[in-house]
Amino acid sequence: MKILYELLELQGISGDESRTAKYLCEYVEKRKKNWKVAPEIFFGEEFHDCLLLKFGHPTTAVFAHIDTIGFMTRYNNQLISVGGPEVIPGTWLVGEDSLGAIRCRIQGNEDELFHDFPRGIIPGTCLSFEQEIRVDEEYIQAAYLDNRLGVYNALKLCETLENGWVIFSTYEEHGGGSMPFLLRFIQENAPIKHALISDITWVTEGVRHHEGVAISIRDKFIPRRKFINRVIELAKESGVPFQLEVESAGGSDGREIQFSDYAIDWCFIGAPEDHVHSPDEKVSLVDLQAMIDMYQYLMKNL
Amino acid sequence: MKILYELLELQGISGDESRTAKYLCEYVEKRKKNWKVAPEIFFGEEFHDCLLLKFGHPTTAVFAHIDTIGFMTRYNNQLISVGGPEVIPGTWLVGEDSLGAIRCRIQGNEDELFHDFPRGIIPGTCLSFEQEIRVDEEYIQAAYLDNRLGVYNALKLCETLENGWVIFSTYEEHGGGSMPFLLRFIQENAPIKHALISDITWVTEGVRHHEGVAISIRDKFIPRRKFINRVIELAKESGVPFQLEVESAGGSDGREIQFSDYAIDWCFIGAPEDHVHSPDEKVSLVDLQAMIDMYQYLMKNL
Amino acid sequence: MKILYELLELQGISGDESRTAKYLCEYVEKRKKNWKVAPEIFFGEEFHDCLLLKFGHPTTAVFAHIDTIGFMTRYNNQLISVGGPEVIPGTWLVGEDSLGAIRCRIQGNEDELFHDFPRGIIPGTCLSFEQEIRVDEEYIQAAYLDNRLGVYNALKLCETLENGWVIFSTYEEHGGGSMPFLLRFIQENAPIKHALISDITWVTEGVRHHEGVAISIRDKFIPRRKFINRVIELAKESGVPFQLEVESAGGSDGREIQFSDYAIDWCFIGAPEDHVHSPDEKVSLVDLQAMIDMYQYLMKNL
Repeated sequence: MKILYELLELQGISGDESRTAKYLCEYVEKRKKNWKVAPEIFFGEEFHDCLLLKFGHPTTAVFAHIDTIGFMTRYNNQLISVGGPEVIPGTWLVGEDSLGAIRCRIQGNEDELFHDFPRGIIPGTCLSFEQEIRVDEEYIQAAYLDNRLGVYNALKLCETLENGWVIFSTYEEHGGGSMPFLLRFIQENAPIKHALISDITWVTEGVRHHEGVAISIRDKFIPRRKFINRVIELAKESGVPFQLEVESAGGSDGREIQFSDYAIDWCFIGAPEDHVHSPDEKVSLVDLQAMIDMYQYLMKNL
Repeated sequence: MKILYELLELQGISGDESRTAKYLCEYVEKRKKNWKVAPEIFFGEEFHDCLLLKFGHPTTAVFAHIDTIGFMTRYNNQLISVGGPEVIPGTWLVGEDSLGAIRCRIQGNEDELFHDFPRGIIPGTCLSFEQEIRVDEEYIQAAYLDNRLGVYNALKLCETLENGWVIFSTYEEHGGGSMPFLLRFIQENAPIKHALISDITWVTEGVRHHEGVAISIRDKFIPRRKFINRVIELAKESGVPFQLEVESAGGSDGREIQFSDYAIDWCFIGAPEDHVHSPDEKVSLVDLQAMIDMYQYLMKNL
Repeated sequence: MKILYELLELQGISGDESRTAKYLCEYVEKRKKNWKVAPEIFFGEEFHDCLLLKFGHPTTAVFAHIDTIGFMTRYNNQLISVGGPEVIPGTWLVGEDSLGAIRCRIQGNEDELFHDFPRGIIPGTCLSFEQEIRVDEEYIQAAYLDNRLGVYNALKLCETLENGWVIFSTYEEHGGGSMPFLLRFIQENAPIKHALISDITWVTEGVRHHEGVAISIRDKFIPRRKFINRVIELAKESGVPFQLEVESAGGSDGREIQFSDYAIDWCFIGAPEDHVHSPDEKVSLVDLQAMIDMYQYLMKNL
């Protein structure tokens, strides 16, 4: 899990994913020779800060967003949100501007946010939760499990994947924006019929720790039932523990597939977490393993 | 109106339109030999649960959405909405899960919805309003006139249409999502300049029963004035009774044409109904006939 | 500034931009022979009410929206908004319906708007703020500086531009809708990598009159940081006065570039105004000049 620890330490809020993308690209270049199939790699300014890996002859793509929620400095000592971070006064934030490294605490509330850094911070500076990774027998707890675990799952999948796209997208936490051009590129080069969203969901009264990876029947948006039924059938065959999610809120990269110019079925599949969008996101290790196993099975059998 | 009765009995909330699509496709296959022009039919997994009919050389398309609002079961005895159904406690819902047929009543309110079915229902099960069709000299009243009447109007149009697309779309009640790929397919195969939205609108202080089909100058979105003016001119020439609608809220498949990658003018034209999104939607038969007549005229003269 | 005065007198709320587009097209046809490079002109029904000018070999496009906020008559003496106009009871509105010229005042509040015109106005009639242009040594004040100044800036740029697209878009004030088809046309004909949004922003506690053109690091949406950093570097080199904006709300044509099917970097650059969306919008002449100078510099050096 060394790669997961490194991923968790990377700062990269929505809009500022270039370092994370570069890290992933270098990792892929280094590891691909050990993978069952060496993918074709699409990376660079033409793809902004996204990374696309094409394995064999794809009919399905896996999407994992690489951006995180966070904060941006405004004028004076004001902060504004990037995505929807949990605002807990006293939480430590870290970042850097041209004057040097920054470590400060959140003050105020969701409507009026401030930092307590002794000097002014240059407007537009990105700040992330200070990272503290905690792993025990049952759980991993850290900032940004959403979606470093989804990225980790996608990288694990690469080791054995024979046919399929693995896509690292940007901007998901702040309304999206990379999915449309990624989908166009995919459909014009090696088109897909299905998409799996490798992302982290919520622990709720119906989705609990240790009960397996969540397969989402819906969130704010509703994927096509015919496809979801097929995914559930395969999930049953797989023997991998899973639970069904039915939510009326929340969204993912699936939203942008739904509204894209292409008829692509999609399904969100991911481990559930507690303390969403806080520095203390918490996921069961059993559920993470189920997520990894389920993706391996589905990408072979879909 | 046998076909209308059959349409009204079909269950198919947004995301779960496959049965409705199949029914329509079979109907078209059976009837097309009696139509003035036999259309080219596009149907199947490539088009998800949509159906496209191409008559002659199109410059205009008619869009009718085939999905309906409804409910989905969540955990325990909770319900969540699909689209924006009117929530009236005590309303009967029907559906089916793998344990058998379901008939139950809505309890609670818009924020906390429940059903009273004696056994648990499998999470993610789709439920629709129980249907009760009432027709008298003046009105038709039933669940899901929105948009079974729009579909019926489109099918009536097929009988005499010489040039044009007739499109049965999905997902309209829940944010849309099929229009973008339908539009791309249309524009890449037999492109259009204009679109008419065959859907049902609201009775308001300015749009009344028995005063003709409503031509919408705007809802939440604003079609291009130049095109609307032309539609109104033709409507005047047609002699068919119509009324003008000006609303600040509401949307339709027109929204997705507005935001599509193509410069296509659009106009919503449909009969008004009372008791919107309830089991008691009510439309004047005179207005329905005006809707049918107006589409015939416009598709010949636009 | 004769052209600016003429632009400010043109009525053309979102959806009803045909007269403004025609005026611009005629202006371009008349003036292009005096420009450094004569552009290729794309105009006509195929482009709805937009106008595209292609100079040389573009890698960057400048977008200026030509629509304005305003009002539309509903039933009886009701008004509804187009875009988000400031509602100040007593404000004079002007327009025209088939019965003749209209001049009336706003009554009521944002939830229930009325006009006081003695006769009924035909439903769906467009009304604009009555124009009163005031210019002194320091400021220009008028209705619709947003975005007549952005259009004026784009036209000034045309005089010396060698390579680039200059695009006049529609619908921006009311949710957008022309950008997707404009972007598709651009990318299929002479594709770009960057876009600058020539529009007017807000005076706030961090963006003030007389301190230069505002370069927006973000509004509700977040452009890619890597590109923004490059724009800021160039802005520093330019010697043109500028200030950095960081907002959590507001949007522009940049939003639709972000969500388009293409990987195009974008940045909003415009003078700030006070009394936004009122008849009294106010911009510093120094900031307007900085906007014009900055576009000249960036379009040469990006």
